Amino acid sequence: MNKTKPLILITNDDGVSAPGINTLIAVMSEIAEVVVVAPDKPQSGMGHAITTNETLYLNKISLENDPVLIYSCSGTPADCVKIAVNEVMKRKPDLCVSGINHGSNSAINVIYSGTMSGAIEAGIEGIPAIGFSLLDFDWNANFEEIKPFVRKITLEALEKKLPHDVVLNVNFPKLKQKEIKGIKICRQARAYWKEKFHKRKTPQGRDYYWLSGDFVNEDHGEDTDEWALNNGYISIVPVQFDLTAYHATQQLNSWNWNE
Amino acid sequence: MNKTKPLILITNDDGVSAPGINTLIAVMSEIAEVVVVAPDKPQSGMGHAITTNETLYLNKISLENDPVLIYSCSGTPADCVKIAVNEVMKRKPDLCVSGINHGSNSAINVIYSGTMSGAIEAGIEGIPAIGFSLLDFDWNANFEEIKPFVRKITLEALEKKLPHDVVLNVNFPKLKQKEIKGIKICRQARAYWKEKFHKRKTPQGRDYYWLSGDFVNEDHGEDTDEWALNNGYISIVPVQFDLTAYHATQQLNSWNWNE
Repeated sequence: MNKTKPLILITNDDGVSAPGINTLIAVMSEIAEVVVVAPDKPQSGMGHAITTNETLYLNKISLENDPVLIYSCSGTPADCVKIAVNEVMKRKPDLCVSGINHGSNSAINVIYSGTMSGAIEAGIEGIPAIGFSLLDFDWNANFEEIKPFVRKITLEALEKKLPHDVVLNVNFPKLKQKEIKGIKICRQARAYWKEKFHKRKTPQGRDYYWLSGDFVNEDHGEDTDEWALNNGYISIVPVQFDLTAYHATQQLNSWNWNE
Repeated sequence: MNKTKPLILITNDDGVSAPGINTLIAVMSEIAEVVVVAPDKPQSGMGHAITTNETLYLNKISLENDPVLIYSCSGTPADCVKIAVNEVMKRKPDLCVSGINHGSNSAINVIYSGTMSGAIEAGIEGIPAIGFSLLDFDWNANFEEIKPFVRKITLEALEKKLPHDVVLNVNFPKLKQKEIKGIKICRQARAYWKEKFHKRKTPQGRDYYWLSGDFVNEDHGEDTDEWALNNGYISIVPVQFDLTAYHATQQLNSWNWNE
């Protein structure tokens, strides 16, 4: 083991056997010592859930002489980061990377994203962190095209040091490598999901619902992640976990709270 | 039905049968037409999870002539708000209130909170929203003491209109009504949980873990929610769901992304 190598923790929300995480393992292994702790099943849409009312299991998947230590965990991405840092890793990692998610985590999707919750959990624990997502929901999505960019972004973050309490939300357009125009630092587009509930009946006649929806982006700003992705760029949104709406405090302080 | 009454949606994360939500129903019924859609089981720590890989069930609990329409839903608090707005309510509610949570959602807890995810989901959908939490985990916590404050905050929000894309995170100290010093607009304290994993063995000898931890607040600012709560005040943090760390964009734009 080269002592000068950085130590990188890898997690995701699609589960330890997803192709996206294997791409991350391949890229990170070239530049760092790597430990993987990822969910044992898909955890998409889990937001920043943690498991306190159920037990957690941790299973070592890698063999004794494998170059990368790989564990699966029965919990959420946030659980995976917590248990990795406290029970698996010998020292605090230099970086945590999460993904590569099969599907977008741009705009408001960051709120629902298990991938980003893994990265944000690391950020809360004082570990620099990046979440990576590719705009392709296909299980067999082509992650080869974006490998050089994943490497570039990771090396830049390791060298320049991320700002304190800031996590990167990186989304890749579904394009060939040579079609990608470059990387843009963006803000989160103001968008939402217009839900559609599909009402069906069980064979026994009981109503049930499937949640789905259409993504609605009414924010056409050219500084948004949606604009970047729609115009051939990789979007990077710096994300914070201090949710305070500082711009609103003055107005709220003018209300009659204590009369 | 009085047509001038506002329409309020109530949800929570402790489940439809929790004492905390009954307090909200009692207070809101005095000032509004009320619809309740809440999880059919506790959903604490669920963060902003949504259910897209499983079916959702919606059960009407209230009887035909009950003054309040009450449903339980098999999903998360965010699911409850989505299904309430799309499948239950005849029009968009004037306000969504979530809670009253049995336990704190101050500081970084807002990220893990199912209660706040219900309120934030409403905010994303353009509905003014407030999450209420009492710093008492006891199922039999005394919610009577804080009723007048819940009413006051709700009426103020209905009258003055909340700032756009801002949701209120309200936390109450565990005090008698007359001991509470007042209401303070605060920022989220910079704090974290120092995890403790309790490692045990199943009867069959397999290791498993319980996640618990100690809350560590290193932020002693007198403008924080933690300071307010520790000094006898009700804390209100305005919360946003645009997670962009705008202060970090300048620094990130100085990096060599496209070389």
